[in-house]
Parts: sequence; C-alpha cells; structure tokens
Amino acid sequence: MKFLNENDIWKCVSMSDVIDAIDESYRVYEEGTFTMPTRTQLKDGDNTLILMPCISKTSIGTKLVTSFPNNQDLPTLHSLVILNDHENGSIQAIMDGAFLTGLRTGALGGSAVRHLAKPDVQSLAVIGTGVQGFYQTLAACAEREIKEIYFYNRSLHKIPDFIDELNVHLNESIRIHICQSVNQAVKDAEIIITATTSETPVLPEDETLYHGKLIIGIGSFQPTMQEFPDVLFKTAKHFYIDSHDAKKESGDVINPIKKGLYDDSHIHYFSTVIKNETHSSQLNYDEGSVVFKSTGMALFDVVVASNIFERSEKMKVGSHI
Amino acid sequence: MKFLNENDIWKCVSMSDVIDAIDESYRVYEEGTFTMPTRTQLKDGDNTLILMPCISKTSIGTKLVTSFPNNQDLPTLHSLVILNDHENGSIQAIMDGAFLTGLRTGALGGSAVRHLAKPDVQSLAVIGTGVQGFYQTLAACAEREIKEIYFYNRSLHKIPDFIDELNVHLNESIRIHICQSVNQAVKDAEIIITATTSETPVLPEDETLYHGKLIIGIGSFQPTMQEFPDVLFKTAKHFYIDSHDAKKESGDVINPIKKGLYDDSHIHYFSTVIKNETHSSQLNYDEGSVVFKSTGMALFDVVVASNIFERSEKMKVGSHI
Repeated sequence: MKFLNENDIWKCVSMSDVIDAIDESYRVYEEGTFTMPTRTQLKDGDNTLILMPCISKTSIGTKLVTSFPNNQDLPTLHSLVILNDHENGSIQAIMDGAFLTGLRTGALGGSAVRHLAKPDVQSLAVIGTGVQGFYQTLAACAEREIKEIYFYNRSLHKIPDFIDELNVHLNESIRIHICQSVNQAVKDAEIIITATTSETPVLPEDETLYHGKLIIGIGSFQPTMQEFPDVLFKTAKHFYIDSHDAKKESGDVINPIKKGLYDDSHIHYFSTVIKNETHSSQLNYDEGSVVFKSTGMALFDVVVASNIFERSEKMKVGSHI
Repeated sequence: MKFLNENDIWKCVSMSDVIDAIDESYRVYEEGTFTMPTRTQLKDGDNTLILMPCISKTSIGTKLVTSFPNNQDLPTLHSLVILNDHENGSIQAIMDGAFLTGLRTGALGGSAVRHLAKPDVQSLAVIGTGVQGFYQTLAACAEREIKEIYFYNRSLHKIPDFIDELNVHLNESIRIHICQSVNQAVKDAEIIITATTSETPVLPEDETLYHGKLIIGIGSFQPTMQEFPDVLFKTAKHFYIDSHDAKKESGDVINPIKKGLYDDSHIHYFSTVIKNETHSSQLNYDEGSVVFKSTGMALFDVVVASNIFERSEKMKVGSHI
C-alpha cells in the first residue's frame, strides 16, 4: 500500500495525461461497464461527509470528502481517494483527494477544450481564482496555444499568490490580465470558464458576450448554485453535461429547465462527443455558443487514480506505508 | 495525517482499553447521538466493496472493506478505517482496518464476557480458530481468570500457528486443548464463543450443553449464515444483540424468528445491559443460558478508532504521511 501526495502525482502525470484519462472515463461511461451508486452524504449540522465509490472493469476506487463550509483557516474540503486492487481487493494506494479532485476537474474542463474549442483559439477568461480556477487554467493551456488570460475574482487579496503559482506551470509568454469586472474579463475571450460557488449567475445577461464562444461551467454542483445567466440558454447551440447526475445536482441545468428556457432534449452527454469523435468544425459556432457543464462523478476519480497508480508503479514513485 | 498499523495500535491500547471503548459505544448507542446510515455495498460478481461511515458527537469515521471470498493466498477481507477531525473535517488518521475490526470484534465479545459472564468462570470454548477466534480468545481472557481453553476448528492445519501467536499474548499457565469435535470442546466450557462463517449451525442440537452458560456468536453476519442450533433458543433465558442491524443481517437472529422458535420480544439490546449496569447475578443462569449475538456496526469502529487516535497523539505513535 502506498501513499501518493501532490508532488508524487505530479511526478507521474502531466495535465495532458489526466485529460487522456478523462477521455477514457467517458468511453467507460458510454459502455456502461461500471457500478456507481448515488454518493452517500452524512450531514452533521452545516458539515457533510461524502462517500463516492465506483467499480469499473479494471479498478475499485472510493473518494471520501468532508465539506466544512465554516472553516476559516483550513480548507473547507478535505479528501482522500482509496484505490483497491480489482483482482484481490487489497489496498493499492491512498491519494491526496483534494489535489486529485482539482486535477481531474481541471482535466474535465481540459477535455471540453480539447474536443469542443476551435483549434486556433488564443484567449481564455476564468471567473473565480480559487483552487478549481487554477487547474482549469492549466488544463485549457495544455490543450490550446493560449496567449491571453483574463481573470476575474470577487475579492482580489488572493490573486498575487494565485498568479505566482500559475507562473510556475505556464509558458511565460502568456499575458495575464486581472480584470475589474466579469464583463471586462469575458468580452475578448474565446473560451470562458466559470469556477465559483455562486448561487446567482456570475456571467452577465448580455448575449453578445457569448456568441461563437465555448463556455465551461464547473462551479455549480448543487441545485441552489447557478453560474450561468438565463441568456446563455438562448445563445447555446450545443449544451453538454458530463453525467446524468448534472440533471439532478446543478442549478445550471435544473433552473433553466424549470424556467422553460431549455428542455431536456437540448441537453447531451459529453461522452457522445468522445464516442462520435465530434470535431469543433461540426459545431454551430457561427450561430451561437457551445456550453459544457460539469458536476463530476466518482468514475472520473477512479479512472484517473488508477492511471496515476499504474504510472507510479512503473516509475517507483510514492511512500510505502 | 498519520497511519497506524497493527504494531502502532498495540502500543496505544490493551484489549481491556478497547473493551472500555466498546462500552462507551453502547452508551452512545443508547443516547442515539450519532448518524449511521445503512452500509453501502457495491457488488462486483462474488466480490463486494463495503463502506461503513458514522458520525458521533466527537468523531467522524469511515470503514472501507473489500470482501473477495475466492482469494486463495491473500486474506479475503482488506480494510481501512479513516478518521476525520470532528471540528474541521481534516484527516486525522488512517488505520489498518482488518486489525482494528478483529480487535473491536474481540472487544465486543469481551464486553459481553465482562458484563454477562459469572465472575468465577474459568473455562472457555472457541469454535473457529481464524482471525476472529484469536481476538475473541484474547478478549475473554482479559476479562476473566480463564484456566482452560477448548478450541475446535474444521481444519487443523493452521492451528499450530494460531497457538504460537496466542502464547505471545496469554498467560502461560492457561491450558489449551485442541478438540476433535465441537461437542468435546463445549461440554466443559462455561463460556462458548462461535467465530465461523458457517451457513449451518456449528453447535450441536443438545440442550444440556448450554445450560448455565454464556454463549457468544460473532460469526453469522449475513442472513444466509447461522452458527446457533435451534435448541439454543429453547434454553436461552436472555438473548442480547449488539445493534438493531442484527435483526436484518444475521441468520442467527432471522432464522429462529422465522421458524417461530423465538420472537422479537425476547431479543434485547446489549446497550441496555450497559445502561442499567446489569450484573451477571441478575441473570437466570440457573434456568438456562445467556446468549449474545454480534454483527457489528460502524459506531464501534469509530469510537474505538477515535480512542486509539487520541492515545496515539499523547504517546506520539504512528507514521506521519
């Protein structure tokens, strides 16, 4: 049994490798060759313990997450991923779940960029400069030759650290803009990513801002949360979700259907993009926008963790415990 | 975050300490101050991934178990217990779950011996000399001045190792008997413990074998399993179970009710013994036998793990990962 922390995992995989693993997860999702019950949630006041198990044809994995929204000095989420051997049940690895979640959620956005963004896009806006915004940025830059990034965050005080950390990973020729409004951040960007926990739309109700663009939402993971404005459903020509859970879990999917802005027939699984090898040239960017909404699922964690574990074995990375 | 293996845990607690923690668990069970959903079971052919979370007033814990019944060289069960900080959700410790389960299951039998066995009993029979039989033996010997132990196991080939390992822990004055039949093992024993995975009764249908004795069953944890003979329900004057799950999970509880040998009103929670400070002198040993049946629950794991973690902090035991 080995433990893999953030440094160990970075030794084993690049963001591009993780995006490959996400693409593989979508293939498994299409095949249906996995067992994944609804996540178990134990409430204790404001706090929650969440268990997300999944068994695929080759892996057994469980993500354990605690959510303590009132934490002040510590992160609000703590997490582990436990991987068991599919052949004999023994424990193969325990991994830093918070890092793995950031990485795989980044790679979910990255896979959407890989398959949906026009090949020649050069500009990116990221709304929300927390942990998720960080990995979304790395993943988008892994898939396209991004030259301009526009960031917006409600508060500015953590932005300097965020930029310092980004600069460790990104090509130094990329120009970074810190914007004073969401409008300013998104108006010139060809890809827009929202990564906030907002309960009201963070993107403006102005359809001209979205025409011909790829919009990726990864923040809203509860019915009470919504990042997308109503007008986006008017301009969206293609609306993809990462799993059927998004229809139950995200306000970005639930609310527009409830309001009659959109109906279920307009919503497609991103796994069909992978299966059909859809190319961005087949998408109607000339007539509106392309939207991808992710809420995540344990299958992604398990396929990514299994991929990392296999590489860690070959490369002899990790601490044996 | 620290990892505690079997050696670390033995440095922190004695069997008697673990029995104290089990008694504490029963007090929490009586108070009802905990959240514990039905365990999540993911089936994959013959194999199962089981998740057992529990939140008490002071602890958050999750036991993860894989059951691979067809394993030949490796154990059929692999397990971890993960303990999170109740105040901020951070991961406090990961523990060897197989060992912890053996220890706490032993202590469940030990608590029954502590509170139900006559003070002067000196003899013990253990049917099944696997991992569970080992810890049951240690726990019974921690609570009474046992002088004679009678073991029976279907196959003899692992018995020498079992005895060698027991001798590390037990007083050398104890006399150990390896019996050729269950009948021989139980006839002179004042406490009888069954620790097998049998699907048919392992104890004989002879009521004279059980009169005036304490019978403890810890093996049958599924409806298809049964260790107790029908005649035991005739002689049982007190029948205790460790949690309401036993009524759903154990063939030793389900089958006699189904057959009409016993009804629900005869079955009592062991937690009432702790709450009422019942003494063995109050039990009708003169008229029959006293029975304790355990199937376990996550609350036991969490209270025991939390107790071990606190001691490990004070004693600076465990590997930081």
